Amino acid sequence: MDDNFVKEITNIDEDFAKWYTDIVLKAELADYTDTKGCIAMKPYGYAIWEGIQKYADQKFKETGVENVSFPQLIPESLLQKEKDHVEGFAPEVAWVTEAGGEKLEERLCIRPTSETIISTMYSKWLSSWRDLPFLYNQWCNILRWEKETRPFLRSREFLWQEGHTIHETEKEAIDRARQMLDIYANIAENLLAIPVIKGIKTESEKFAGAVYTYTIESMMRDGRALQSGTSHYIGQNFSKPFEIKFQNREGKEEYAYQTSWGISTRLIGGLIMAHGDNRGLKLPPKVAPIQIIIIPIAQHKEGVLEKAFELKNQLSKMFRVKIDDRDKYSPGYKFNYWEMKGVPVRIEMGPRDIEKGECILVRRDNGEKIIVKLEELNKKIESILENIHNDMFQSCKERMEEKTSVAYNLTEFKNHMEENQGFIKAMWCGKEECEDKIRELTGAKSRCMPFEQEHISDKCVCCGEHADKMVIWGKQY
Amino acid sequence: MDDNFVKEITNIDEDFAKWYTDIVLKAELADYTDTKGCIAMKPYGYAIWEGIQKYADQKFKETGVENVSFPQLIPESLLQKEKDHVEGFAPEVAWVTEAGGEKLEERLCIRPTSETIISTMYSKWLSSWRDLPFLYNQWCNILRWEKETRPFLRSREFLWQEGHTIHETEKEAIDRARQMLDIYANIAENLLAIPVIKGIKTESEKFAGAVYTYTIESMMRDGRALQSGTSHYIGQNFSKPFEIKFQNREGKEEYAYQTSWGISTRLIGGLIMAHGDNRGLKLPPKVAPIQIIIIPIAQHKEGVLEKAFELKNQLSKMFRVKIDDRDKYSPGYKFNYWEMKGVPVRIEMGPRDIEKGECILVRRDNGEKIIVKLEELNKKIESILENIHNDMFQSCKERMEEKTSVAYNLTEFKNHMEENQGFIKAMWCGKEECEDKIRELTGAKSRCMPFEQEHISDKCVCCGEHADKMVIWGKQY
Repeated sequence: MDDNFVKEITNIDEDFAKWYTDIVLKAELADYTDTKGCIAMKPYGYAIWEGIQKYADQKFKETGVENVSFPQLIPESLLQKEKDHVEGFAPEVAWVTEAGGEKLEERLCIRPTSETIISTMYSKWLSSWRDLPFLYNQWCNILRWEKETRPFLRSREFLWQEGHTIHETEKEAIDRARQMLDIYANIAENLLAIPVIKGIKTESEKFAGAVYTYTIESMMRDGRALQSGTSHYIGQNFSKPFEIKFQNREGKEEYAYQTSWGISTRLIGGLIMAHGDNRGLKLPPKVAPIQIIIIPIAQHKEGVLEKAFELKNQLSKMFRVKIDDRDKYSPGYKFNYWEMKGVPVRIEMGPRDIEKGECILVRRDNGEKIIVKLEELNKKIESILENIHNDMFQSCKERMEEKTSVAYNLTEFKNHMEENQGFIKAMWCGKEECEDKIRELTGAKSRCMPFEQEHISDKCVCCGEHADKMVIWGKQY
Repeated sequence: MDDNFVKEITNIDEDFAKWYTDIVLKAELADYTDTKGCIAMKPYGYAIWEGIQKYADQKFKETGVENVSFPQLIPESLLQKEKDHVEGFAPEVAWVTEAGGEKLEERLCIRPTSETIISTMYSKWLSSWRDLPFLYNQWCNILRWEKETRPFLRSREFLWQEGHTIHETEKEAIDRARQMLDIYANIAENLLAIPVIKGIKTESEKFAGAVYTYTIESMMRDGRALQSGTSHYIGQNFSKPFEIKFQNREGKEEYAYQTSWGISTRLIGGLIMAHGDNRGLKLPPKVAPIQIIIIPIAQHKEGVLEKAFELKNQLSKMFRVKIDDRDKYSPGYKFNYWEMKGVPVRIEMGPRDIEKGECILVRRDNGEKIIVKLEELNKKIESILENIHNDMFQSCKERMEEKTSVAYNLTEFKNHMEENQGFIKAMWCGKEECEDKIRELTGAKSRCMPFEQEHISDKCVCCGEHADKMVIWGKQY
């Protein structure tokens, strides 16, 4: 019975996609539903999202952002107003055509993103430069009718936050878009222990309607990239058709400068794929719904459970702790169960440990066992959790470095992609046809032009013509 | 300029409905949108909702409830499964019929409530009594295609939480439904300062698909009732058609016992209508996004702003404080502005106050002015906020008592309703035709059969036949 769980999970090196789905289901993060392409998030999965929300929401508010709520149904005429935007989103929206027993005169789409409905309201609310900036965000659900879906990674309905700001000047708006990207990088690295590359999307990969799209890109265990958060400088692309105008300091009418930015439940997919292993999920301590699981050994013996609950109370003041006192399962079964759930620290405590006034700590990330005196436990765990976070981050970082190659021509590009699937750094001339050719030949797309550029050569990896942009390429989720 | 705001707001005694809409818009709680019947919640309105969420979510979690997320789109076949439920909700749902560029084979409705989609998942997840109870809740948006809409009170889309639990026994489920009603009463009374009557709905007023509907009913300034939260014991009404079965302790198959319960952004409408007056909104301190507004007097004079910010820092440790240092407005204008926004306490501080080491506190609820030494300020404000809460609660309670009459026959009923619109206590025989007759004659509906029954007489107020239930009647929002 002890390795039940490990056997139930597909080997990560044999079939990464199936391993992923196994983890989603077995670790009880989510489940498939009768609504095709949409998942139900179970308590354990949702608690991770709550952890992300809490951290992100606080960071947003520290910069002056306020939360709001806009309608989820958008009249078709509004969606049509910005040309690139409607081209990008119309093919994947869902339409409400009947309601209250009647056919509607105008179709309403369920928001695939909210720039349009929000822009109409901003137009109504804005009059003077004194009103600016608007720094609003909403936590809500989104619907995009994807053909191929996967839990968390690409779900028809998903949860996210979308920030929408308008500003007096281009500079202020661009600074805000960059500032929010920095917060996203902070969330990925300091909360989720996932290192990211910050950069700007190429024209063909940017958000439909944006001037620039900034992105954080992370690498999963299989070398594929996950776009983990994006922040768009929208310029006046929406403020012109939607007439978001204000009287500027010179008394003249001007269109506002706009941004939007979002992260979603996709990050949970990232957590699974960046950290998980053959024993299951592996959660970084700061976002783990349960940081410590206490497993009493020989719990039927006198005093064991009592001591275990005492310990739980002691630890609960500082950490998120749970005790597994189910009597129908053996300790071995429980070890596997909670490893699969990714709990960062396990505490084992039996009669002999109690006698010696100690317990055994086991780290989920590397399996290390540590014997700790009970009176030192709180302090010790504090530093162990810190170490786990750092080690998990470091291990992802090393993998990203190992799986990043440099290519000077298409043959090298193709070989690297086949031999060491991951990121490829290569120069690019700026032409979309080179991006297309690379994708057709290798399956890799441009992930971003990193802010931290390196001068690799002067020639485009594809056409050999002059190139001054280094691009990170990779296959993507 | 000073009474700008008061003039912009319709007199509360002249046109209560228009006064309400004025407050919603002028206090910047919400605005109408291009999506008919749906509002945009502005930062100040949304912050109130966040206050309610935070308080409620903690109370739920203290009783073991966990948050989850289910799809918002429900296939038509699922909605059809429970007869009463579909009859109740089908007329007001919105249907998605096209998505991803294609006509759907089966229509999907946007959730008007989630019993059906959640029940299918519970059926999948439940196998043994050991798995029970499921105590899940979701914070989400809901759509009901209302014909007449009003911001917060009856909006096509609104935000709410819906708890859905299943249990091993009827008793446990009923206890849970009652427990959650108690939490709702706690939220209304202790957070929102709105007294409520707890009771059970009559058959004709209960939730479509429930066995019993428990409710908290509150009274607005105009004497009308607001159903402020409901908790349903659903019995096996859904578990049978949806096959939510488990093996019980005797090894036999049994259907689970179910509850559901919800509160919504409607409570914000309740806050406005229970407490507001001719000067605007009046927020109870615990849920007020801003508890204290500091208004510097003669702020151009040396040291005034500096001292005001110092004060703000001092107060921020314990309270939600804001300072209004806008230089284009006079103090008088600001007084009115923040009174309209309903901020519970105003602090005025000018050069002379600073010299004396004191400031002037003004209570929003009763206009009382209090001079306080700066060093005593934090402590003093703590007790003032407490008093404001209690006084606001008390004043609502007294109004409810004044506007509650007892009726022994239909003539009295009708007279009371016309002369002193509010609640009427009257005996009821249990027949729906008497409810119908009362509604037709007086406009009042049964609000609930209060848990705290009084024996008024033995005869139905309508038909004069034997009656053993006292019902609270009233016109409703």
